This record gives sequence, structure tokens and C-alpha cells, in this order.
Amino acid sequence: MEQVIELAYALDTFYFLVMGAFVMWMAAGFSMLEAGLVRSKSTVEILTKNIALYSIASIMYMLVGYNLMYPSDGNGVIPTVNFFLSGDHETVDVLASGGEIYYSALADFFFQVVFVATAMSIVSGAVAERMKLSSFLLFCIVMTGLIYPVQGYWKWGGGFLDAAGFSDFAGSGVVHLCGAAAALAGVLLLGARKGKYVDGRIFAIPGANMPLATLGTFILWMGWFGFNGGSELMVSNVVEANAVALIFVNTNAAAAGGVIAALIFSKLLFGKYDLSMSLNGAIGGLVSITAEPLAPTPELAAIIGAIGGILVVLSVIILDKSRIDDPVGAISAHGTCGIWGLIAVVLSNSDATLGAQLYGIAVIFTWTFVMSFIFWGILKVVMGIRLTDEHEEMGADVSECGMEAYPEFKK
Amino acid sequence: MEQVIELAYALDTFYFLVMGAFVMWMAAGFSMLEAGLVRSKSTVEILTKNIALYSIASIMYMLVGYNLMYPSDGNGVIPTVNFFLSGDHETVDVLASGGEIYYSALADFFFQVVFVATAMSIVSGAVAERMKLSSFLLFCIVMTGLIYPVQGYWKWGGGFLDAAGFSDFAGSGVVHLCGAAAALAGVLLLGARKGKYVDGRIFAIPGANMPLATLGTFILWMGWFGFNGGSELMVSNVVEANAVALIFVNTNAAAAGGVIAALIFSKLLFGKYDLSMSLNGAIGGLVSITAEPLAPTPELAAIIGAIGGILVVLSVIILDKSRIDDPVGAISAHGTCGIWGLIAVVLSNSDATLGAQLYGIAVIFTWTFVMSFIFWGILKVVMGIRLTDEHEEMGADVSECGMEAYPEFKK
Amino acid sequence: MEQVIELAYALDTFYFLVMGAFVMWMAAGFSMLEAGLVRSKSTVEILTKNIALYSIASIMYMLVGYNLMYPSDGNGVIPTVNFFLSGDHETVDVLASGGEIYYSALADFFFQVVFVATAMSIVSGAVAERMKLSSFLLFCIVMTGLIYPVQGYWKWGGGFLDAAGFSDFAGSGVVHLCGAAAALAGVLLLGARKGKYVDGRIFAIPGANMPLATLGTFILWMGWFGFNGGSELMVSNVVEANAVALIFVNTNAAAAGGVIAALIFSKLLFGKYDLSMSLNGAIGGLVSITAEPLAPTPELAAIIGAIGGILVVLSVIILDKSRIDDPVGAISAHGTCGIWGLIAVVLSNSDATLGAQLYGIAVIFTWTFVMSFIFWGILKVVMGIRLTDEHEEMGADVSECGMEAYPEFKK
Repeated sequence: MEQVIELAYALDTFYFLVMGAFVMWMAAGFSMLEAGLVRSKSTVEILTKNIALYSIASIMYMLVGYNLMYPSDGNGVIPTVNFFLSGDHETVDVLASGGEIYYSALADFFFQVVFVATAMSIVSGAVAERMKLSSFLLFCIVMTGLIYPVQGYWKWGGGFLDAAGFSDFAGSGVVHLCGAAAALAGVLLLGARKGKYVDGRIFAIPGANMPLATLGTFILWMGWFGFNGGSELMVSNVVEANAVALIFVNTNAAAAGGVIAALIFSKLLFGKYDLSMSLNGAIGGLVSITAEPLAPTPELAAIIGAIGGILVVLSVIILDKSRIDDPVGAISAHGTCGIWGLIAVVLSNSDATLGAQLYGIAVIFTWTFVMSFIFWGILKVVMGIRLTDEHEEMGADVSECGMEAYPEFKK
Repeated sequence: MEQVIELAYALDTFYFLVMGAFVMWMAAGFSMLEAGLVRSKSTVEILTKNIALYSIASIMYMLVGYNLMYPSDGNGVIPTVNFFLSGDHETVDVLASGGEIYYSALADFFFQVVFVATAMSIVSGAVAERMKLSSFLLFCIVMTGLIYPVQGYWKWGGGFLDAAGFSDFAGSGVVHLCGAAAALAGVLLLGARKGKYVDGRIFAIPGANMPLATLGTFILWMGWFGFNGGSELMVSNVVEANAVALIFVNTNAAAAGGVIAALIFSKLLFGKYDLSMSLNGAIGGLVSITAEPLAPTPELAAIIGAIGGILVVLSVIILDKSRIDDPVGAISAHGTCGIWGLIAVVLSNSDATLGAQLYGIAVIFTWTFVMSFIFWGILKVVMGIRLTDEHEEMGADVSECGMEAYPEFKK
Repeated sequence: MEQVIELAYALDTFYFLVMGAFVMWMAAGFSMLEAGLVRSKSTVEILTKNIALYSIASIMYMLVGYNLMYPSDGNGVIPTVNFFLSGDHETVDVLASGGEIYYSALADFFFQVVFVATAMSIVSGAVAERMKLSSFLLFCIVMTGLIYPVQGYWKWGGGFLDAAGFSDFAGSGVVHLCGAAAALAGVLLLGARKGKYVDGRIFAIPGANMPLATLGTFILWMGWFGFNGGSELMVSNVVEANAVALIFVNTNAAAAGGVIAALIFSKLLFGKYDLSMSLNGAIGGLVSITAEPLAPTPELAAIIGAIGGILVVLSVIILDKSRIDDPVGAISAHGTCGIWGLIAVVLSNSDATLGAQLYGIAVIFTWTFVMSFIFWGILKVVMGIRLTDEHEEMGADVSECGMEAYPEFKK
């Protein structure tokens, strides 16, 4: 009997670690997606940003973020502050708990730390090609050490949003809307790229490497099985195993629905099969199902994803018309579809109410947007957040990183 | 005891889901392989095709294909038609079965749905650079909703091919030969790319991005561990765990044998170490072992793969001399090696007979080729399947997708 | 009870296979990293080299290497020679052992074979752009069939280094230092690339495709969870599951520490955020923690990785000043950081002594370097190891492989 408890603990821990490795892999997905969608002169910089933000997130969340988000104590709004990671469960405690303690605490940390990195990755694409790298990295410290963990505490750490009945299974709000809100604050303070909006006209700035962008999307799709599938937190009995399987199926169906809807919708709008929109459709579908991947049938999941795929296209167009320059469509895919996903929870989960969902959306957005705006505002005043015109013209790669992404290919 | 049954169910389900995620990843592999092997002016289109076909396959198989392939009833030739997915097993039923029901039904669906996408991916490369995207997507609906599931039913759903003793462990026939037969039908109706065969001469059209093609091959290699390893369908006891381990080892050995044989053979033929042929050698080796990855020793697996690696080189040359234009070598790698793999089953599996294998090959090929030919023929008459000369000249990227893959790089 | 033993065997085997698939994936990581860091005219050749070396390693280790490294008998220095793989454990033996035999022998082989390929991958980058492919492939046979397995036997096969108390958990020495020592021997015999050191000046030769190099690094990072996490060899109880979780966390923390340290240090040195150095910082951090990923706290792991990140930058600079031309920084990342990692074991593992660690370093380096030097020396005399000046000028792609990596992009 004791060996069975240990075996279940081992299986759940291993499941957690594998799912976490899939989510870590999403860091590569964001890097490739963003590197493919920016111009070649800003590619090295965005790659540097991505590997650096993942690293900073890993360290900051270890030092303080994890304990802030899952504190030993707190009043529902303000968590207690603790530093460093604790040790893991003793076998004797696991056995004494009769299986109540069912996975490694460090496996939980690992799964959580890769989530922070995802939230931060959303920001990097939106501010691409014009932000100072130093400012971005400083913001990254605050976002992963403070802004993200605090709102995460409010929901997943047992804070007031959780108490209010706000429902967010795997993070359409806590991760994706949070990342998008921070991105929006940055973009508004930063302004558009030079040459994007000139004399009342909107100029498309095509991405330099579409195979990379597609690869990035496939990586994200694969990683999302870990993102949503791991958020079930347990696999070791029939009910839980079925739940994880349903989440895999629904995640896939929503992404597929998003692609097809975005492809058809953009074909109707523009007369062409638009790859960028299809890729954003996949991500939009994935974000949309993330708030509730367990309750819907696969058919409903596909529909929720398909609506996400249409919304991402509309949102990209509307933001562009509003002169909000988001080079990779991150605010639309993660913000607009994050909101849709949170609302869509009420379609399948009878415990969720529209009121609680809207409340959660408002709280997460407001907190993240305001805090980000303040901190980026401070950075803007103190050291500047935007490249000089000359540096932007020359490209962030040479000015910030002293290196070209494709030095041999003629432009 | 009950907890042990549940734990075994959970392990087998989790194993299925992880293996399925590996197979899903093969969609990225095909995308990168094909995007690397076509010209830059057809790259966006093939990427769009790949993400769209994966999505269509996911939806069509959910709506009808899965139930066609694994029907509740059927006469061995014609399966009953049912729509949508059913629910999953109840704990009480699992326990009552004493472990006979040993994994989630939805995990099974997930594993199967990624297989359909693989079959369809094979088609997309062969018809690259000259087919209308609309026609391709319509074909995709019929292939994944009807053509593939019906022949799949004949073997894996318990139909007449299975009853006839035809042996195909993980799909050298059901997946790879099927995909290749559909591709061949398309290619014959479509004709060669302009400039490929002129005045009795054959012109090589080099792929635009060989690192992508190599990446795609490595992705496929990795994903194949799921493809073959998951097809054992169970891992939760000593015999099954050993079986999965042997399949991993044999899959790797066959791919390695394919690379080495293709590399040496093409060096002897052409005097150079040919990367394209080496990559196709890997895939040829993998396809060759897929019909029977469990019975051979690893040494025999390497030999079976090596023969596949030689066959793929010969097949590419012969098809080219026959004016059958397959830009990525898909018909050779999946069709020729699929046939070889099915025949090679008799080398190690004493239950298999050459007669039954040839019968299965004939049935799968004929059904898929004829059905595909008919459906693509209808499309050709009704709406056309080939780009206009002008559009082909300009490239499918601009004409079909309105976008360039590498807009900044001079050609 | 018997079913529980079988289930634990199945879980440990499955864990091993998944971790092994992650390590196999590192082959793609090395390929992309190296393909990104060389010039475009040497890209096809390095891709060919990578897929070929992985294949040769797979076959040679199956035929002889595995049995050499884990022999049935041996005197601590010279292992007995056996060929081919043995069968797997019988259920009856597993049960009789009461769980002492706890995973598939073939799963162990699979995990080990992907390690050899890693060691060999390290070599390919260092000798890039100027070595004859034939010579490299012949060396590969000897390295994977003899040089690597023998020193592996000394430590992991229970030979004299193990008896001497040398500690190397997952292979900072056995894999990484070994690969780097072989690379150094090759580089010294080969000399620098033309145009690298001219008239007493050092010329930087930028890599042609930085997104590929970044992708490769992320792949390696992901694969390293398998590399270190699988080296625990067991997951099926609370203590082991916790251990694997800690290894995942420490591996991630060390890589993150390496990136941040290398990024800041190179910014201080060069005034720019250097992407190449950041990537090498990640790898340096990963190599540094590989000798002991289980004993340190995550905070110490991050520090060990950070020191690795600084060392890799220093080492790259010093090697360059010493006119040792390593196009991808492999000797620094794997050799210098491998040595540091082995020394750092004493910081957290009280069983390790500095003396034993230095002894192990000396033995592995000397054996590998001398054997490699001899064998490459023989190749140099007999058939030459370096491309002709004309071929190097034209690029290894055209001269060795008859193919360009990016035939359409103007240079």
C-alpha cells in the first residue's frame, strides 16, 4: 500500500515535470515566432531579449516570485514575502498524508516558473524593434518578481479573486491577459515604429522570416499541451487521467478551430490565404480555451477556438486602425482572446458566473496595466525606453547587440 | 488493488498522451522539411498548407473520421457512420473490467488524430509549388474524413484486411503508403513544375533553405518515437515496457541505418555527400521499420532501415527519370519505403505471410489512389487544381497568400 | 504486490525513454547551433556531418561501444569486448529480484546511445568549415566505438576512476570534457580557418543565421532536462521523484545563471548585449551543473551556472588570442565549463574531493586528447584532414556536398 502511494506520487511528479518541460519549450516558440515576424535588422535583439527574459524570470521567480504567488500567509490581497525555495516533502509525510501530498514541491515550482516566462514572452513581441534592451530587462525584473506573482496570488494562490469565484483554469487571465496588459502599457508609452503610420496611412511591415514564425507557432501548440494538460495538476487515477486526456483533445481542437476560422475569415476579408493570420488564429484559439479546457466537449472547444480565431483577426485590424503598433499581434492573440476565453468559461462551466469573470478580467487588467504603466513611465523619465531615431533606423541588432542576424544575406 | 488498476490506467493514458504529443510535433517536422525543400517563392504557401491541413484533419477526424475508422459496427468493408466523440470510461467500469479497459478513450482519439495529420502531411510536399491551395484544402477534407479512415478501418478497425492476416504495426501501409498513394494521384493529375523537365532534360530545382529541411528531419525522427512507441498501446507491465523500449531502439537504429546507407550510396553514385538524400534516408529508414518495429533485433532493424535508405535514393532517381515531379521526395520515402517496410515484416514476424502483405499493399494503394484520383479529377474539372502559368511563375506565396517568406533577402 | 513491482518497472522504463528522447533531440540542437554559427558556405556540410555523426554513433555504440562501456567483465582499465545488444529482462526475473531490476535494459541502452551522440556533436562544431568530411566520419567511428566508451567505462562502467572516488553525475567529464578534448586535438592538427588570423590580427567571422543558433540553444536547454534528469536513473518513489524534480530545477537555474552572467559580463567587456555569448552562457551554465545537479540548492546551482557563464566568455577570448580557432565556442562551453563543473562538485557534494576530481579531469582529458591526436594524426598522414585551399575558399558545401544551403539568397 505504501509503495502504491509512492508510485502515485512519482507518476504525478513525473507528469508535472514533463508537462513543465513542454511549457519551457514555449520559450523557444515565442522566440521563433517573434524573430520571424520582425524585420531582419531587429532579429538578434529580439532573440537576446527572449533568452534573457526567460533567464531573468527563472531567477526572479526562484528568489521571490514563487513565494509571493503561493505564500505561507497573506490577507487575500497582499501576500507575505519570503525568499528562496523550500525543501521537498519527506517520504514519511507523504505516507502519513495518505496520498493527500501527491507530488514534489519542486516539480510544482518548475511548472510554475515556466509559466512566468510565458507571461513575460508575450510582452517582448509587442514592444519589438524600438525599445531599449536595458529598459526591457529592468521591466522584466519587476514583472516576474512582483507584478505577475501578485495577481497570480489573487487567483491561484488563494487570494481574493479566487474567493470571488473567478474561474481561470490554466491562465487565459493570470498568464495571457496579464502579459498582454503589460505589453499594451509598454506600447502606449513607446509609440509606433517609425514608418508604420505616416501621413494618415498605415504601412504593413512584413516579417523577415515566415518559416521561423510558423515553427514558433507549432512549438507553442505543442507546448500548450503541457500548459493546459499540466494545469490539471494530477493524472494518477481514472478520473484525473481522463481529465488530462480531454484537456489535450480540447486544446488541440481549439487551436485547429482557431486556424480554420482565421484562415477563412481573412480570406473573405483580404482575398488571400493569410499565413500570419492563420498563425495568430492558432494562438488565439489556444489562449481562448486556456481558461476552461476541461468542461467543454471537443466540439464546443473547437467553436470557442474558432471564435478566438475570428477575434484575433478583428483585433489586429482594430489595433492597427487605432495606431497601436504591435509587430507580432501579441496584444490581440493573448489579450483579446484571453478576455474571450475567460468569458467563454460560462458556456461550459456552470460554477462560473459572467459577473465573476468580468470582475477578474477588470482586476487583472487594471493591476497589470497600471503597475506596468507606472514602472515603464519611471524608466522613460529616468533613462528612456525608446531607441534613438538613428538607432531605430540602423536597427536594434547593430545598435544594441553589435551583431547582425543574417550578415551574409543581401537586403 | 483498485488503486493499482487506476494507477496502471493513468500510466498508460499518460504514456499515450506523451507519445501523441510527439506525433503532433511531426506536423512541425513536415512543415520545416517541405519549407526547406521548395523554392523561396512557394514557402509561405506550403507553410499555410501544413498548418491548415493539420487543423482540418483534427476537425474532420473528430467529426466523422475517428468513428468511421473505429466504428461501433461494420461489415468489414463498410463501417457504420457515427458523428462526434463519445465520453470516456467511468472509474467503476474500469475497475469492473479488472484492467481490461486500461486507458482513456480520448487519449486514444488524441493519438489517432495526429496520425491522420501525418498521412495528409505526406501529400502536401509532393504537390508543392503548383497546386491551387483551395483545391488542396478541399481534398484534405475528403482525405481525412473519408479516404484515410476507411482503409484504416480495414486494418486497425478490425476490417477485412486485418482478418486476412495483413500485418502493419504502426502504419507503413495505413499511414505512409496511403499518404504516398494520394500524393501520386495528385502529382499525376497535376503534372511537373514548369522548368523541371524541358527538352528532354531534367533540371534540379534546389530547396531554398537546407537547415530548415534538416531541422524538419530531426523533428520527424524525434516524433517517430511517439509514432512507433505509442503504437504498442500499453506500457504498464514488464513485457509491455520492454516492448516499448525495443521499439524506441529499433526505430532509432533503422533511421540511423537509413542515413548511413543513403549517404554512402549517393556518394558512390554522385561523388558527393548528399544532404537531401541523407535526410530522405532517415525518413526512408523510419518508414521501413514502421510496419514491424517490435519483432526485429536492433541489428536487423538497422539493416531494414539501410535497405530503405538505398531504396529511397533509387526511387527518387527513377521517379525523376519517369517525369514524376515530387519536390520533396515524399512518394519515394513514404510510398516505396512503405511497401518495403510491409514486405520486410516477414523477415522477423513469423505470423506474417508475403501473400497477406502484398494483398494489403494492393488494397491500400488501389483504394487510396483511385479515390484520390477521382476526387482530384472532379476538382480539376470543376475548379481546376493547378495554378495558372503566371501565378506559378510569380510563386504561390504572392499569388495564393499575398505574402513573401523572406521579403528582405535578395534573390 | 507483483503488479506494483511491474508498474514501478514500467514507470521507470517510460521515464528513461522519454528522457532519452529529450537527449536525442539535442542532436537537432547541436545541428542548429552549429549551422547558425558558421558561414553560409559551410552550412550544408555541417548539417550533413551532424546527421551522419548521430547515425554513426547509434550504430557503432550498438555494435560495440555499449558493451565496452558497460562490460560483463573487465579489470578496471581494459573492458572485455562483446558485440551486439543482449535481450531484455524476463518478468519472472524482475519479480524475483523484488524490484532490484527496475527498468528495461534496452531503455538503458537507448538513454546511453544518445549520450555518445552528444559527445560526438561537440566535436563537429569546433572543426567546422575546414575539415574533410571523410576524415571526420572516420574519426567518428573510432570516437564512438572506442575512445568514448573506454573512458566511460572507467567512470560509469565501474572502472578505476569510479573506484578512485571521481564524481561525475551526468557527464561534465565523461561526455562534455571528453568531446571538448577530442575537438581540441582536431583543431590543433587542423589549424585555423583562412582569414581568421592574418598579420597578427584576429578577424571575427560572424555566423550566418543567428535565429538558428538561438533555436539550437533552446533545444539543448530543453534536451538537458532529459540529460540530467534521466541520469538519476529512477523516478518511482518519493525520494527519487523529488531528486528528479530538484535536478530539473537546478538544471534550469544553472542555465539561467549562465545566460545572465554571460550577458552582463560581455556587456561590460564589449559595451553590447552579445547574443552569441549569451547562448554560450546558457550552454556553459548547463555543462557546469551537469557533474552535480542533485546536491546543490537551486540558488547555488544558479551561481555555479553563472560562474560557468563568465568562464565561457573568458575562455572564448583566451582561445581566440591563442589562435585556437573554434568557430562555435565548443571547446570553451564544453571543455572549460566541464572542468569547472567537475571541480564545483566539491562545493555541494561532501563525498567528492578536489584530488579525485582533478585526477578524473586529468585522466579523461589525457586519454581522449592523446587518442584523438593519434588517430587524427594518422588520418592526416594517410589521407589528409583539411580541405584544399581552393575548396575551403569555395566552401565545404559545394566542394564536399555539391549543394548550397541557401541557393537563392544573394551574398
